[in-house]
Amino acid sequence: MKPVCMVIGAGAGIGGNVGKRFAQEGYHAVLCRRSDQQGLDRLVKSIEDDGGTATGFLLNAIEPDSIEDCIAAVEADIGPIDTLVFNLGAQTGIVSLGDTTNKMFELGWRLATFSLFRAASAVFPYMQKRGKGTLLVTTATAAFRGNPGQHTHASAMGGRRMLCQTLNAEFASKGIHVAHILIDGMVDAPDTLGKIMGEERFQELRESRGLEHDGLVLPEKIAETYFHVSQQHRSTWTYEIDMRSFTDTAWWNHPILDF
Amino acid sequence: MKPVCMVIGAGAGIGGNVGKRFAQEGYHAVLCRRSDQQGLDRLVKSIEDDGGTATGFLLNAIEPDSIEDCIAAVEADIGPIDTLVFNLGAQTGIVSLGDTTNKMFELGWRLATFSLFRAASAVFPYMQKRGKGTLLVTTATAAFRGNPGQHTHASAMGGRRMLCQTLNAEFASKGIHVAHILIDGMVDAPDTLGKIMGEERFQELRESRGLEHDGLVLPEKIAETYFHVSQQHRSTWTYEIDMRSFTDTAWWNHPILDF
Amino acid sequence: MKPVCMVIGAGAGIGGNVGKRFAQEGYHAVLCRRSDQQGLDRLVKSIEDDGGTATGFLLNAIEPDSIEDCIAAVEADIGPIDTLVFNLGAQTGIVSLGDTTNKMFELGWRLATFSLFRAASAVFPYMQKRGKGTLLVTTATAAFRGNPGQHTHASAMGGRRMLCQTLNAEFASKGIHVAHILIDGMVDAPDTLGKIMGEERFQELRESRGLEHDGLVLPEKIAETYFHVSQQHRSTWTYEIDMRSFTDTAWWNHPILDF
Amino acid sequence: MKPVCMVIGAGAGIGGNVGKRFAQEGYHAVLCRRSDQQGLDRLVKSIEDDGGTATGFLLNAIEPDSIEDCIAAVEADIGPIDTLVFNLGAQTGIVSLGDTTNKMFELGWRLATFSLFRAASAVFPYMQKRGKGTLLVTTATAAFRGNPGQHTHASAMGGRRMLCQTLNAEFASKGIHVAHILIDGMVDAPDTLGKIMGEERFQELRESRGLEHDGLVLPEKIAETYFHVSQQHRSTWTYEIDMRSFTDTAWWNHPILDF
Repeated sequence: MKPVCMVIGAGAGIGGNVGKRFAQEGYHAVLCRRSDQQGLDRLVKSIEDDGGTATGFLLNAIEPDSIEDCIAAVEADIGPIDTLVFNLGAQTGIVSLGDTTNKMFELGWRLATFSLFRAASAVFPYMQKRGKGTLLVTTATAAFRGNPGQHTHASAMGGRRMLCQTLNAEFASKGIHVAHILIDGMVDAPDTLGKIMGEERFQELRESRGLEHDGLVLPEKIAETYFHVSQQHRSTWTYEIDMRSFTDTAWWNHPILDF
Repeated sequence: MKPVCMVIGAGAGIGGNVGKRFAQEGYHAVLCRRSDQQGLDRLVKSIEDDGGTATGFLLNAIEPDSIEDCIAAVEADIGPIDTLVFNLGAQTGIVSLGDTTNKMFELGWRLATFSLFRAASAVFPYMQKRGKGTLLVTTATAAFRGNPGQHTHASAMGGRRMLCQTLNAEFASKGIHVAHILIDGMVDAPDTLGKIMGEERFQELRESRGLEHDGLVLPEKIAETYFHVSQQHRSTWTYEIDMRSFTDTAWWNHPILDF
Repeated sequence: MKPVCMVIGAGAGIGGNVGKRFAQEGYHAVLCRRSDQQGLDRLVKSIEDDGGTATGFLLNAIEPDSIEDCIAAVEADIGPIDTLVFNLGAQTGIVSLGDTTNKMFELGWRLATFSLFRAASAVFPYMQKRGKGTLLVTTATAAFRGNPGQHTHASAMGGRRMLCQTLNAEFASKGIHVAHILIDGMVDAPDTLGKIMGEERFQELRESRGLEHDGLVLPEKIAETYFHVSQQHRSTWTYEIDMRSFTDTAWWNHPILDF
Repeated sequence: MKPVCMVIGAGAGIGGNVGKRFAQEGYHAVLCRRSDQQGLDRLVKSIEDDGGTATGFLLNAIEPDSIEDCIAAVEADIGPIDTLVFNLGAQTGIVSLGDTTNKMFELGWRLATFSLFRAASAVFPYMQKRGKGTLLVTTATAAFRGNPGQHTHASAMGGRRMLCQTLNAEFASKGIHVAHILIDGMVDAPDTLGKIMGEERFQELRESRGLEHDGLVLPEKIAETYFHVSQQHRSTWTYEIDMRSFTDTAWWNHPILDF
């Protein structure tokens, strides 16, 4: 039976590409996303065309028991979840405090923090019984500092970051590898950045970034590092890693004042 | 009319002492806590005996509109809220992931993160209209790193920390001073540490800490710094400050390995 | 005998103003700077005119034994050094790697890191014998993140920051309070910012910053917080604190991307 | 002509193993260490026996022009330096402030900070001309926080950390990949940990760490990740990554207080 790589948040960007990469290495990819059955089917088919195996689920993560039931079903019917990739975002764009409703703020937490807690609570007992397992969590710069207009996103991601640390602190010695992976640049992802910016401006941005169109973070290249981290020997586990394009400015570097 | 210093989370530790300190300087103290009407009355009386003025409210912060209504009532009936001290904790003790229920995890967030969002959303419009105001937020080491068994506390405090940064980023230039105050040591507070440890062990701990009983963080001394920060000139605002006893080890200092 | 507040790096900005503030509170101010005897004399006289007492020294900190001898002389001839304010900078402006010479890089370290090590090594034995003392260290954003063109400044300040942590870790429990004070904004200081920018541009900058000219960090207001930190009760010592103007953007806040 | 992977600090631990790993992938390994010609010869021979190519140099990094001349000679005589691995440590053990001499403090800086500055200054012009290159810098927990007795090590490593950030900030967009690699655990390295602890205690420690002797960080496994990072596509460069064993406690996790 193939080991399973389960991806929660499997769009056409990071999530889908990570699923593909693991499938190429002999994992069965389980791909979960909230909507777009067609996009999901395309993703499964592209993995199968590539010689791999995959299963897709539409999953509304914020619904009670949705993640829990899906994890139980995968363990029962498909195979042992070796690697869980938690890739749900909670980006809202820039919204002032006055325009941030209680509902929006809570939704961000449910997506970015609480869903991860629920996912870990559901899958870690299986992994702990097997004495091994990997949880790869995609995170955002907002987990490290709060910019204006990011009340929802930053607080939800800040909660996620600390949760990853408590999970790692409790479970590393039990053989479960938690990695907190910071994507500190704009990802060349039509489902997320493309939708936020609109098709036209997204294409302009892509073309403006370098001759070889690699000034945006390329999700298929991200997938290489996700896979590497998942394969690290347990004597050299990475907990935290960042990635950005060579043209990106790291979040801690202000533009220089001109004097 | 006196300016108001409103304290959310006004027990016998930091919150109550900060309220007293502001009352000594001519503020009207508004003291809010979840329960213990007697303790609240004692606190109000001790401020009045000291020549100050104060009002107490029992306030269940996680109830919808509770904070919002109280802030509106204070602004309408008592006076302009110059300083809001947000001092609610969400300490649960050490609880493994398996024993952390969804309900507990959510409650932590409601207390530590969401309540702060709601408080800021309610009070900042008043402060912004006046072009000035101060929000002092007590925070814990768990906002900076997640220890084992702190899934709830650390994720809630991590969310709080990032929220404070987004609030500061949006409102500093509008004249509202946000300060994130880290208490990185055990506080000599009967209502919190005393209850967690039990009376007897709490007394033992107090006595073990230094000849002058100041090895725990003394809340009346904390209050001095809260007051100082609130009075800083706007050209020298502090956003982040930590405090610990001279006998405490800073959170980033491991015990030294013996080789 | 008055307690001494000794300032290393006492120009017309932070250092001089901190010296003045302590003198107003009954300390004897010892003011050390590398050059400008006239400026130093003016500073001493202004403290005396204000009813205080002060002594000035020209001190080339990077010369062997200069700091050590001066500290010994103050302890022998003037009084016990209660508070040492270490305020030497090592700002070089923006210099590319190719233009950063070995000599320049080393000089930065000698000023910003090594001088602090030497000062602490010289003064802590006196303080330790007395069971108390305070070391206030001014630091810069470059201690927290390295911007382009800051090879010298950032590495020297990064070394300083870690040194402050090791000093605090060894000496807090011995009664010596170390505080690492981040000034994260441009200071309204003619001797430093004024010289870097040139008189005319400096005046333009000052006038552009707010109606009340307080959009630059005002050194006399900084001095209030230095003094407060020095007076904290040992049960509530601050190790790290930041300050910036209400119009400054905190170093961790990027300008928002416009989408 | 093979691309060169040059390792400064190539003992039997991380440095030597990283050299071997690159040699297996078709790089010519240039191995530099301060002393022990025999150990160096053994390392070169083990790479050759493995089918690779390597050259060894004894190099006293703190001598003026030593690093610079070696880099120039490699570029002239051996091949283009594609990857420079900077792996010099400056661990002094635990030394109180009183026992830390000026000379010791300066030596730490020369080894850990200044040598890296000199190495980057020497090799980056070649890399920049070629539009690509990689600098992998091994760093220690002391770069992130200063423990007692680490005055020399922490300040030198703190300087190194900030220098890596300024190098990255200036050179990423020019095609040079700088990575700051934190080894946050004890490495199973006879040349460093073995010497600090003594043979016998080192063996005891090794045996106490897990049934499969992988509770220490295994340098040959570290080498896998060094190689992966060096091969990352430039759209997904990692700047910062940590590694520790599954049995290690991350530096930010205090032991839990028992209440």
